[in-house]
Amino acid sequence: MPSRFELANAIRALSMDAVQKANSGHPGAPMGMADIAEVLWNDYLSHNPSNPHWANRDRFVLSNGHGSMLLYSLLHLTGYELGLEDLQHFRQLHSRTPGHPELGYTPGVETTTGPLGQGLANAVGMAIAERALAAQFNRPGHEIIDHYTYCFVGDGCLMEGISHEVSSLAGMQGLGKLVVFYDDNGISIDGEVEGWFTDDTAKRFEAYGWHVVPNVDGHQPDEVKAAIELARQHDDKPSLIVCRTIIGFGAPNKQGKEECHGAALGEDEVAAARGQLDWPHAPFHVPEAIYQGWDARELGAKREADWEARLARYAEAYPAEAKELQRRLKGELPVDLTSEALIEQAQANAESVASRKASLGCLNALGPQLPELLGGSADLAPSNLTFWKGAKAISASEPSGNYLHYGVREFGMGAIMNGISAHGGFIPYGATFLTFMEYMHNAVRMAALMNRQVIYVFTHDSIGLGEDGPTHQPIEQLGALRSTPNLSTWRPADAVETAAAWDAALKRHGAPTALVLSRQTLPHQARTQQQLGEIERGGYVLKESILKDNVVTPELILIATGSEVGLAMDAAVELESRGKAVRVVSMPSTDTFDAQPASYRESVLPAGVTKRLAIEASHFAYWYKYVGLNGRIVGMDGFGESAPGGDLFKHFGFTIDNVVEQAEELLAK
Amino acid sequence: MPSRFELANAIRALSMDAVQKANSGHPGAPMGMADIAEVLWNDYLSHNPSNPHWANRDRFVLSNGHGSMLLYSLLHLTGYELGLEDLQHFRQLHSRTPGHPELGYTPGVETTTGPLGQGLANAVGMAIAERALAAQFNRPGHEIIDHYTYCFVGDGCLMEGISHEVSSLAGMQGLGKLVVFYDDNGISIDGEVEGWFTDDTAKRFEAYGWHVVPNVDGHQPDEVKAAIELARQHDDKPSLIVCRTIIGFGAPNKQGKEECHGAALGEDEVAAARGQLDWPHAPFHVPEAIYQGWDARELGAKREADWEARLARYAEAYPAEAKELQRRLKGELPVDLTSEALIEQAQANAESVASRKASLGCLNALGPQLPELLGGSADLAPSNLTFWKGAKAISASEPSGNYLHYGVREFGMGAIMNGISAHGGFIPYGATFLTFMEYMHNAVRMAALMNRQVIYVFTHDSIGLGEDGPTHQPIEQLGALRSTPNLSTWRPADAVETAAAWDAALKRHGAPTALVLSRQTLPHQARTQQQLGEIERGGYVLKESILKDNVVTPELILIATGSEVGLAMDAAVELESRGKAVRVVSMPSTDTFDAQPASYRESVLPAGVTKRLAIEASHFAYWYKYVGLNGRIVGMDGFGESAPGGDLFKHFGFTIDNVVEQAEELLAK
Repeated sequence: MPSRFELANAIRALSMDAVQKANSGHPGAPMGMADIAEVLWNDYLSHNPSNPHWANRDRFVLSNGHGSMLLYSLLHLTGYELGLEDLQHFRQLHSRTPGHPELGYTPGVETTTGPLGQGLANAVGMAIAERALAAQFNRPGHEIIDHYTYCFVGDGCLMEGISHEVSSLAGMQGLGKLVVFYDDNGISIDGEVEGWFTDDTAKRFEAYGWHVVPNVDGHQPDEVKAAIELARQHDDKPSLIVCRTIIGFGAPNKQGKEECHGAALGEDEVAAARGQLDWPHAPFHVPEAIYQGWDARELGAKREADWEARLARYAEAYPAEAKELQRRLKGELPVDLTSEALIEQAQANAESVASRKASLGCLNALGPQLPELLGGSADLAPSNLTFWKGAKAISASEPSGNYLHYGVREFGMGAIMNGISAHGGFIPYGATFLTFMEYMHNAVRMAALMNRQVIYVFTHDSIGLGEDGPTHQPIEQLGALRSTPNLSTWRPADAVETAAAWDAALKRHGAPTALVLSRQTLPHQARTQQQLGEIERGGYVLKESILKDNVVTPELILIATGSEVGLAMDAAVELESRGKAVRVVSMPSTDTFDAQPASYRESVLPAGVTKRLAIEASHFAYWYKYVGLNGRIVGMDGFGESAPGGDLFKHFGFTIDNVVEQAEELLAK
Repeated sequence: MPSRFELANAIRALSMDAVQKANSGHPGAPMGMADIAEVLWNDYLSHNPSNPHWANRDRFVLSNGHGSMLLYSLLHLTGYELGLEDLQHFRQLHSRTPGHPELGYTPGVETTTGPLGQGLANAVGMAIAERALAAQFNRPGHEIIDHYTYCFVGDGCLMEGISHEVSSLAGMQGLGKLVVFYDDNGISIDGEVEGWFTDDTAKRFEAYGWHVVPNVDGHQPDEVKAAIELARQHDDKPSLIVCRTIIGFGAPNKQGKEECHGAALGEDEVAAARGQLDWPHAPFHVPEAIYQGWDARELGAKREADWEARLARYAEAYPAEAKELQRRLKGELPVDLTSEALIEQAQANAESVASRKASLGCLNALGPQLPELLGGSADLAPSNLTFWKGAKAISASEPSGNYLHYGVREFGMGAIMNGISAHGGFIPYGATFLTFMEYMHNAVRMAALMNRQVIYVFTHDSIGLGEDGPTHQPIEQLGALRSTPNLSTWRPADAVETAAAWDAALKRHGAPTALVLSRQTLPHQARTQQQLGEIERGGYVLKESILKDNVVTPELILIATGSEVGLAMDAAVELESRGKAVRVVSMPSTDTFDAQPASYRESVLPAGVTKRLAIEASHFAYWYKYVGLNGRIVGMDGFGESAPGGDLFKHFGFTIDNVVEQAEELLAK
C-alpha cells in the first residue's frame, strides 16, 4: 500500500514532467497542493470517474486554474478517460489537456478556470445551485441532491475583488457545503506577496460569516484531514481552510520561490526533484501500486449506483417530481412552453412600453412555467424589473427560492451564474445597467467560452436613460457584446421584439444571451404575420419601400435597433412624403442575422442598395459592417451627458430632422 | 451663530429641493450624510473655494456619487463658483450640476463618481500620490506636500469587489492620511441590505490593516468629530469611520427606507421634511447667517497664502526641487525629453524583438528623464516587462518610489491610476494581459471620461501568446478599446512603432492611451525617413505598390497592425512576385489615423481602391470600417486555443498562403 506521500508525489511527478515536456506551464501550484488534493480526492470526494456527468457528484473547482496539471493528474490517476498520452500532449493543439482547464475539453473538468477569482465564484454558484435544487426536490427521507462543492484558491484569487463579492454573498447565504482550500504559499508572479498582499485572510473571511480553519500545514495529511472534518461538521457556514504550503514542493532549488510558479523547472531540477521526492520512476511512469492507490472507479461506480437506487425509490414515491428533476437536469424546456405564443400576444396587445417593462411581462408570463429560471440583479431589481411576481428570494432560511439579491456585485453575479449553469438544473438570469456590464465583462466572456446558457438583462441601454449622465450611459458596450464570440445579443425595438428575444434566449441551450433593454417607453410597431415570424432571424424588413402604393426597390435602407427603430420609421414616413423609396430594417440581433443563409440576408440588405443609413444610440463603429464605406451612421462618437433623455436624443441628433437630413445627403451623393 | 444641525440642514434642504425640481436624483444619501459632511468640511477640510486647483488642498471624494447634491451643496455653501442657479439646473443639459459629480464640469469636484467603489479607489490613488510626492519633494522643515484625502462611501461601494482590492492595498501601504467614512445606513436599492450584505465591515477592514472607528452615530457631530480626531492621530494606517446613519434623515415618512434613495421625495414629503427639520425657508433659500456659518473663502485663502509662503521659502532653499515640483504639478514634460529621438534610434537599431520588450526598452530610456512616471502591474511585472531598471517599489517604509506592485488587482489598479492622475504630479502607467483589461474595463472608461493621462501597458495581445489558451487570448478587447471615446489605442508592429506609441502616449496630456503589445518577437520593418515621421499619424503606407521598379496605383491594399504587419509584408512580396500591385498600410492606431485630415487619409487609403484586405489576430468586425463591404478580413471570429503561438497562427489562417489566397480571391471578384 503506497503512502500518502507517494500518492501525492504521483501528482508532482506528472505535473513537472508534463510542464517540462511542453516547456510551458505552471508546476508550482500542483506540487504545492498535491498533499491537500490527495487527502480530499482519496478520502472525501464523491465522484465517479466513469461518469463525469453524474448529477449528484461532488464538484471540484481549481480556481487557481494555471495549476491545471494538478487537476489533469487527479483525473488521470483516479481513472477518468484521460490517458498518459493526453498528459504528454499538455498545452498542444487539440489536446484534452489545454493550458488551463477548459469545460468541455476534458472529462471531469467542471468549469473553465484561469481568470483569477472566477473559479471561486463558480464554486459559490454551484453550491447555491446544489442547495436550491435540494430544497426544491428533496423530500423527507429522500436526499436526492446532496453533495459538496470543493474549491482550491490561490493568493491571486483572494486578491481579486470578485473574491470579496462572492465570499461575502456565500457567507450571508450560509453555504455550509462549500469548502474552500486556500493555498497560502506566500508567492505570486511578482515574487513574495508580503510586498502587496498582507491581509489577515482568516479574519477577513470570519468577517464574511465563514467558518475558518486557520493555520493548517498543507503538507501534513492528518492536519488537512482534520480540517476537512471540521469543515464538514459546520453545515451552516461555508468553510475556508487556510493551508500553508510550499510552492513547487519537492524541487530542491526552486521550491518556495516564484521561479517554479509559471515555467518548466528544467531538466536538471526535475531530476533533482525526483531525488528529493524519492520518486525514481521514469518521466510519465506511475507504478501500478500507485495507480491502484488512486483508482476511484469502483467506489465511484458504487456511489453512483447507490444514488441511482435512491433516485428510483424517490421516483416511486414522487413520480412527478422525479420526472421534473430529470427534465431540469437535462436542461430541456417544458414541451408546452408558451414563449413563442407570447410574441403573437404582444403583437396583438400593441402596447407601447419600455422594453425593460416588456421583459418583466415576459418573466411574469413564463416564470410560472419555468421553475429552472434562477433570477437576480446586482441591487437594481426595481430598475431592471427582474423581480417578477413569482420571484422568491433565496436565503439561508429559505433556500428553495428562485431569485438572488446579488447585492452590488456585478462581476460576482456573472461568475456565480456561470457556476449555477455549470452545476445544472437551472437557467440563471441576472441584471444590471448595460454600462455596468463592464464590471462583469470577463464573466460574460467566460459564459460564452464555456457554452453556458446564461441570460443577461441589461437595462438602461443608451443615453435614453437620461439624468444619471455619462457614467451610466452606455456607448461602447453594445459593440463589445456583439464582438464576443458565441454570445447572442438582442436589442429589441418594442414589446414584441422583447418577447422574441426572451424566446430566443430560452431556446439558446448551451450559450449565453444578452438582452439589451430600454429604460424609456418604446412605441409599438405594426407587423404582418410574416414580419412577426422573421424577428427570430435577428434582422428583417419592418417597412417596405412603398411609392404610390407599390412596393419598389428601395433607394435607401434605414437600419435601426431598439429605441431607434421608432425614429427610423418616423423618418421613413417623412422621406416617403418627399418621394424617396425607403426601406426600414429592424435589426434586434446582429449575430442572429449574420447566422442566416446568404439568400435571406441578401433579401433584407440587397447588395445593390449601397445607400444605407444605420441609426443606433451607441458607438457608430460597429455599423460599418452593414452600411460599408458608402453608407452613413447616426450614432454616438463621444460620451453622453446628464439631462432628461428626450433632451439628449435631440442634442445628439437622434431626431427625425437629422435622420432625414443625413438620408437626403446620402441620396444626393 | 447657527447650530451644527442648522448648518447641516442647509445641505438637506438644497438637496431635496434640487432633486424635487429636477424630479430626478438621490436625496437619501445627502440627507443622511449631511451631519458628517458638516463636521468634516467646517472643522477639518483644508481647501480654498476660490482656487479649486490649489495643489496642497485636502482631497474630498464622494464615492457614493449618486449623492451628488451633497457635494454640490457643500461647494455652493462654502463659496465655490457654483451658484443657486446651478443647483436649480441640477441634472439639466450643460449645467454644472450633472446627475453624478463629473470632473471638469464643476469647480471643486475632484473626480467623477457614480460607478460604485471607484471613488474609493480614486481616493486611495490620491493618498498614494500625496505620500509619494511628499516623499520625493519634502525636505526637513519643508512640508510642502502634506494633505489629507477624505472619502465618503456607501454600502454599494463596499459590496463592490474593487473595494476589497484597493482597501487591501491601502492597508498594506499604510496610507495614514486616508480617512474613509462609511455611510452605514442599511439600505440599498433592493431594500434593506441585511438580505444581501451582512459583512462585519469593521472586522473586514481590520483584516486589511486599517484603523477602524466603529459604531459612530453619524448624526451626532461630537461623535463624528471624535472619530476624525482618532483617525488623524493614526498616521500609519488608513482609517475607516463606520457611521450609522438614517438615509433621508429628516423626511418624516420616507427616512430609513429605500423610497428616499433614488427618487424625488415629492412635494408633500419635502414640505413635511421642512417641518421635521424646522427649516421654514423657501425652496433654494438659505439664510445669510447659515451662509456665513459655511463660508470657507477667507480661511481657505489664508491657508493657501500660508502655503504659498512656505513654498517660497522652499524655493529659496531648494530651487531646483521647487522648479521640478512646479513642472510636475503643471503636468509639463521635460523640455529635453528624448522620446522622439527614441523612434529614430529604434529604426537605426533595426532590432526584432517582442513589442513588450521594446516597451521595456522605452521605459529604460525614458524612465530616468521622467520621475513623474508611476508604474505598476497587476502582479505580472515579469511578463508585462514594466519593472524597468530604475523602478523602485513604493511601500509604507519606502514611500518615495515610482512603482506599485498592485497585486492581482486589475480593476483596483485602473481606478487607483485615475486617482493618482487626478491628484497631479504623476503620469501613471499600469499593466496586465490584454484579455484582463476586462477586469478593469470600467476604470479604463472612467479615465477616458475624466480626461486622465493614464497609460495602459496591455501585453500578450493575441493568440500569439500561445499555450495559456483561450481564457488568456484576447479576441474582442481591441475593438472595445477602439470604441471607447477619448481613448487612444496603439498596437505597434515593431520596436520602432512601439517607441512612437510611447511618444504619443506621453504627449497625450489629458487623455489615456492603451499600448497593446505582443508576447512574441516581431520582425523589424525598414522605413524611409518619411515613413518614420508618419507613424505618429496612426496609419501610413509602409510599402508602396511597386511593379517593375515603379510605384503604381495599388489594385489591393493590405492593412495590418502589430504582429500581423510582418505577415502582410511577406504576403505582399509573394503577391508582387505574381504581378499584383499591392500596398501595405500599417495602422498601429486607428483613432489617431481617423483624426488625420481627410487628404492624408485619402492618400493612405484612396477611395478608388476598394479591394482591401485587413489582417489582424483580433475580432474581425471592427475592420469593416476600413475595408467596407467590398473588402475582406483575415481576423478571428471565435475564441483561441491552447497551443504554441506559431501553431495557432497557422491554425487560424494567419499564414502567407492564406493571406495570398484571400487576396487572390478578392482580386478575382
